[in-house]
Amino acid sequence: MNTNNASTLDLNCDMGEGFGAYKMGNDLAILDHVTSANIACGFHAGDPPTMRRLVAAALAKGVAIGAHPGLPDLQGFGRREMKISPAEAYAMVLYQVGALAGFAQAAGGRLNHVKPHGALYNMAAKNRPLSDAIAQAVFDFDPGLVFFGLAGSEMIAAADALGLRSANEVFADRSYQDDGTLSPRGDPGAMIEDADQSLAQVRQMLKGSVRALSGAEVPVRADTLCLHGDQAGALDFALHIRSALTADGVALQAPVRS
Amino acid sequence: MNTNNASTLDLNCDMGEGFGAYKMGNDLAILDHVTSANIACGFHAGDPPTMRRLVAAALAKGVAIGAHPGLPDLQGFGRREMKISPAEAYAMVLYQVGALAGFAQAAGGRLNHVKPHGALYNMAAKNRPLSDAIAQAVFDFDPGLVFFGLAGSEMIAAADALGLRSANEVFADRSYQDDGTLSPRGDPGAMIEDADQSLAQVRQMLKGSVRALSGAEVPVRADTLCLHGDQAGALDFALHIRSALTADGVALQAPVRS
Amino acid sequence: MNTNNASTLDLNCDMGEGFGAYKMGNDLAILDHVTSANIACGFHAGDPPTMRRLVAAALAKGVAIGAHPGLPDLQGFGRREMKISPAEAYAMVLYQVGALAGFAQAAGGRLNHVKPHGALYNMAAKNRPLSDAIAQAVFDFDPGLVFFGLAGSEMIAAADALGLRSANEVFADRSYQDDGTLSPRGDPGAMIEDADQSLAQVRQMLKGSVRALSGAEVPVRADTLCLHGDQAGALDFALHIRSALTADGVALQAPVRS
Amino acid sequence: MNTNNASTLDLNCDMGEGFGAYKMGNDLAILDHVTSANIACGFHAGDPPTMRRLVAAALAKGVAIGAHPGLPDLQGFGRREMKISPAEAYAMVLYQVGALAGFAQAAGGRLNHVKPHGALYNMAAKNRPLSDAIAQAVFDFDPGLVFFGLAGSEMIAAADALGLRSANEVFADRSYQDDGTLSPRGDPGAMIEDADQSLAQVRQMLKGSVRALSGAEVPVRADTLCLHGDQAGALDFALHIRSALTADGVALQAPVRS
Repeated sequence: MNTNNASTLDLNCDMGEGFGAYKMGNDLAILDHVTSANIACGFHAGDPPTMRRLVAAALAKGVAIGAHPGLPDLQGFGRREMKISPAEAYAMVLYQVGALAGFAQAAGGRLNHVKPHGALYNMAAKNRPLSDAIAQAVFDFDPGLVFFGLAGSEMIAAADALGLRSANEVFADRSYQDDGTLSPRGDPGAMIEDADQSLAQVRQMLKGSVRALSGAEVPVRADTLCLHGDQAGALDFALHIRSALTADGVALQAPVRS
Repeated sequence: MNTNNASTLDLNCDMGEGFGAYKMGNDLAILDHVTSANIACGFHAGDPPTMRRLVAAALAKGVAIGAHPGLPDLQGFGRREMKISPAEAYAMVLYQVGALAGFAQAAGGRLNHVKPHGALYNMAAKNRPLSDAIAQAVFDFDPGLVFFGLAGSEMIAAADALGLRSANEVFADRSYQDDGTLSPRGDPGAMIEDADQSLAQVRQMLKGSVRALSGAEVPVRADTLCLHGDQAGALDFALHIRSALTADGVALQAPVRS
Repeated sequence: MNTNNASTLDLNCDMGEGFGAYKMGNDLAILDHVTSANIACGFHAGDPPTMRRLVAAALAKGVAIGAHPGLPDLQGFGRREMKISPAEAYAMVLYQVGALAGFAQAAGGRLNHVKPHGALYNMAAKNRPLSDAIAQAVFDFDPGLVFFGLAGSEMIAAADALGLRSANEVFADRSYQDDGTLSPRGDPGAMIEDADQSLAQVRQMLKGSVRALSGAEVPVRADTLCLHGDQAGALDFALHIRSALTADGVALQAPVRS
Repeated sequence: MNTNNASTLDLNCDMGEGFGAYKMGNDLAILDHVTSANIACGFHAGDPPTMRRLVAAALAKGVAIGAHPGLPDLQGFGRREMKISPAEAYAMVLYQVGALAGFAQAAGGRLNHVKPHGALYNMAAKNRPLSDAIAQAVFDFDPGLVFFGLAGSEMIAAADALGLRSANEVFADRSYQDDGTLSPRGDPGAMIEDADQSLAQVRQMLKGSVRALSGAEVPVRADTLCLHGDQAGALDFALHIRSALTADGVALQAPVRS
C-alpha cells in the first residue's frame, strides 16, 4: 500500500541525441511513457532536423518539452568536464535554449523546462558560480521556465536564489552517498541494476529520503525522476515504474511552469 | 539636388563574425553608422559570447537586430555552396534564428529581421524551394519579422507568397547584370571600388533602377543597402554614404517589423 | 562453371564510421570477409580512437588498410556536395590521409590505398580538376599508394596521368547507365536488391562488361568491389559473394601497392 | 660579457593558427627569426590549407617543423582544460601529428619535433599518465622526433622514460615559482613585460637557473625558448633576443632529431 507523502512525480528522459546519420535511443517509443522530454540542442548531441522532429513528436504526445544544453563536445558526448567560465556557461546555455525554444515556438508549443546535460550538469551541481550563471541564462530567457537540477545541489540553490522554479531530480538506477550526491559511476555499488530495488528507492525518495550506500538514511526531495533512453531495458523499466507508481496513486505529471 | 522617389533606406551590415580567439571586422565602430545589424549565429561565424556582446551593443545604440544564419561551414565562412535539402535549410535557419532571438530576448530586446548569409543567400536567391523553406522557418518562428533578400530575387517572392514582410537588398560596391542579379565576383567590373560611383549607384537605385554592366537600365527596388564591415575603408564608406544620403533627405531607418 | 577473364578481385568496405558515443556498422564482423578496409578519417565520420581501433583490427586480420577521406561535414555524413576548390580538396585529402597513415605507422603497418568518400567521390568521378588535385595529394604523400575510384571515371584518368596505381571500383547493388556511370540513387531500378542478381552482375563485370539499365552491354573494368557495412544484410551478402567467387576460382585479394 | 655554459638554444614559435577566413599572428615575418616552428594541426586552430602553406614556408626558410597538437576546442583555442583519458590523448595527438607529418612528407620535408598546445601542454606538464600517453604517441609514430615540454616537468620525464629525445622549454616573458613551474597567468608578477628583464632571465637560464618570484634561485635547463607570435611586439622581441644571444656567442639552432 502506498504511504507516499509526495503525490506527484515527473518522469523525464533525455532525447533527440542522434546526429546526422547517427541514431541513438528509442525516442518515439519512450515518449509514450514519460512526462518531460529533455531534448539535446546540438552541442553534445542533436542537430536541427532531429530537434524539429522531437519537438513535434513531444507536442503530439502531450509531453512537456525541455532544452537539454550541453558542452560543445560532440566527440565526448558532453561527458568530459571542460574548464569554462560562468560567462561562457551563460552564453552557451542561452544559445542552446533559444535554439530549442525556436523549434517549440515554430511548432506552436512552448518550452517548459531546462536541464543541463552530462558534465555541465555534474560541474554545476557542485559549483555555485557555474550554477548561478546557467540559472541566470534560463531566467533571463524566460523566468517562467522550470530548472531541473540534481536534488539538493547548487543548481537548486541557484534557481531558488533567482526566484526561478526548480525541480529536484533523482535517479532510480544510481546509488547515493551520505551527502546526498550520487556515487561516482565506476565505484562499486554505484549502479542499481535490479528493477525492484530501483523501484523501492524511488518509492522511498517520494517519502523524502534515500538509503545511502553506507546504510545511512539521507533526506532527498524528488520532483522529477530521470529515465535513460539510451540503455538496454530502458523502455521496460519506464513501463514498470510507470505502472507501479500509478498503482501507488502517484500522479505522473510534468512540473508546471509559470 | 535630391530627386529621390524613395524617402527611406535601411543601412545593414554583417557583424559578430569573430569566433573564439579570432577577431573579424570593426563591429562597434560600424554600429554607429548603420540602422540594422545582421549578427552571425555560430554556423559560418560567431559564437555564443560574441552574439551576446553584439546584441547588447546593438540594443544600446538603437540599431535593429537581425539574425544572419549561414551554412554549417566555419572553415569556409559559409561561402561554399552545399547541396542541402529545403528541409535541412528550414531546420538550420530556425535553429540559428532561435539562438539569436534568445540573446535578444534575454537582453530585453527583440529580433527585427533575418538575412541569410553567403552561399545560403546566393543559393536561395535563385532557388525558389530553398527560399520557400527559409522564409517558412522565419515565418513559423515569428510572422512579424522582416526577411532580407536580394532585390527582386526568389527570396523576395518566397516572402511575399507567405505574407512575410521583406526588404529588397541592394549593393553599392557590386555591379549588376541585365537580369537584376549581381555580376559574379571575379568577373571584370564586378566590384565598384570608387566611392563616388558607389554613391551614384545607390542614388539611382533609390529612384528605382540601376545601370547594368551592359549599360542597360534595369529596374530595382532598394529597401536596404548592404555595407561590409570586414573590408578596409568600410567605415569611411559608411560615413560617406550616410552623410550624403542624409543630405539628400533620405531617412535612414530600419524596416519596421509587424 | 567460371569463365572469368579476370582472375583477381578486391573486396572493399567502408569502416570506422562511428563517432564518439555513436556506433555505425558492424566493422569487426565484416573485416573477416573483405580484403581492403576503407577507414573514415574524422571529417565525415570517424574519430581518433575509432581510427586507432580499426587500424589495429585490420592489421590483426591481414586486411589492407586504406584512408577514406571525406568532406568536412559530419552532420551530412559527407554526402552533401560542397563547392570546394581543387586546392581545398588537395589539402583536406592530404590532411586525412596523413592522419590515418599515422595510426598505421604507429601500429607497425602501412597504408595500402586511398578511396574518397561520398560526395567527394561522386564529385571527383565527373570533375577532372578535382580528381587531379585529390590524386596529386595521394601521390605527393606516397606515390606507392593505390587510388580507388569509380571504374572508368575521371578519378582513374587522374591517377593514370600521374603514374599513380589505380583500382577501378564497381558496385554489386547499383545499376549502371549507358555511359558506365551509376544510376542515381532514387531512380527506379537504381538499386539491385536481389543477391543473385548482384552476384550475376559481379560475375559479368569480371568478364569486362555490365548490362546497363537500358539493356545495353557496357564495358567496365572491375578491380575492386564495394561492399556496404552499414546496411542490413551486408554481412550475409559479403559471405555469399565471397564464397561464390571463391568457388569460381577468383582470387580475392587487395591490390598491391608499389 | 657572456659566461654561458650552454652554447646552443632553439627559438620556437607557435604558428599556423589561422582558420578559414580568420587570420592570426604574423607567421611569415616571424619565421625569419626562429629556428623551430610549432604548427597548429586543426583541432584548436589551423586548417589543412594553412598547414600546407606554413609547412612550405618553414621548409623554404630552413626552419625546423614541429606538430603543435591541441585539444578539440576551436572555440576555446585549446586553452580550456578538458578531462580526457590518456587513451584519448594518445589518439588525438597521433591523429594531429600524422596529419601535419603528411604535409611535411608531401612537401619533401620531415617532422622534427612535437610540442603540445595550451591546456593539453599545461595538463600534461603536471600529469604523468597524460604525458606518458602523449609521449608514447609521438614515439610510436616516429621514435626519432624531439618532444618539447615544460622544462623539468612530467613531460620531460615521460620522454626520458621512453628514450624519446626531449627539449626543455623555457619562457622569457613568464616568471617562475620555487618549484620551477610558471607563475599562473593573472597572478601579480606572472608576466615579464620588460624586454631587458626577459633577456636577463634567458641569459641566466642558459647558465642553468632562474630567479623565482620569491627571489630564490631555482635550477632550470633551457633547450628551447618559446616566442609568441600572436602578441604585439613579438617580432621586435624576437629580433632583440636573437641579436643579443648571437652576440653572446650562443648558437641558435633547432634540436637535432635522430
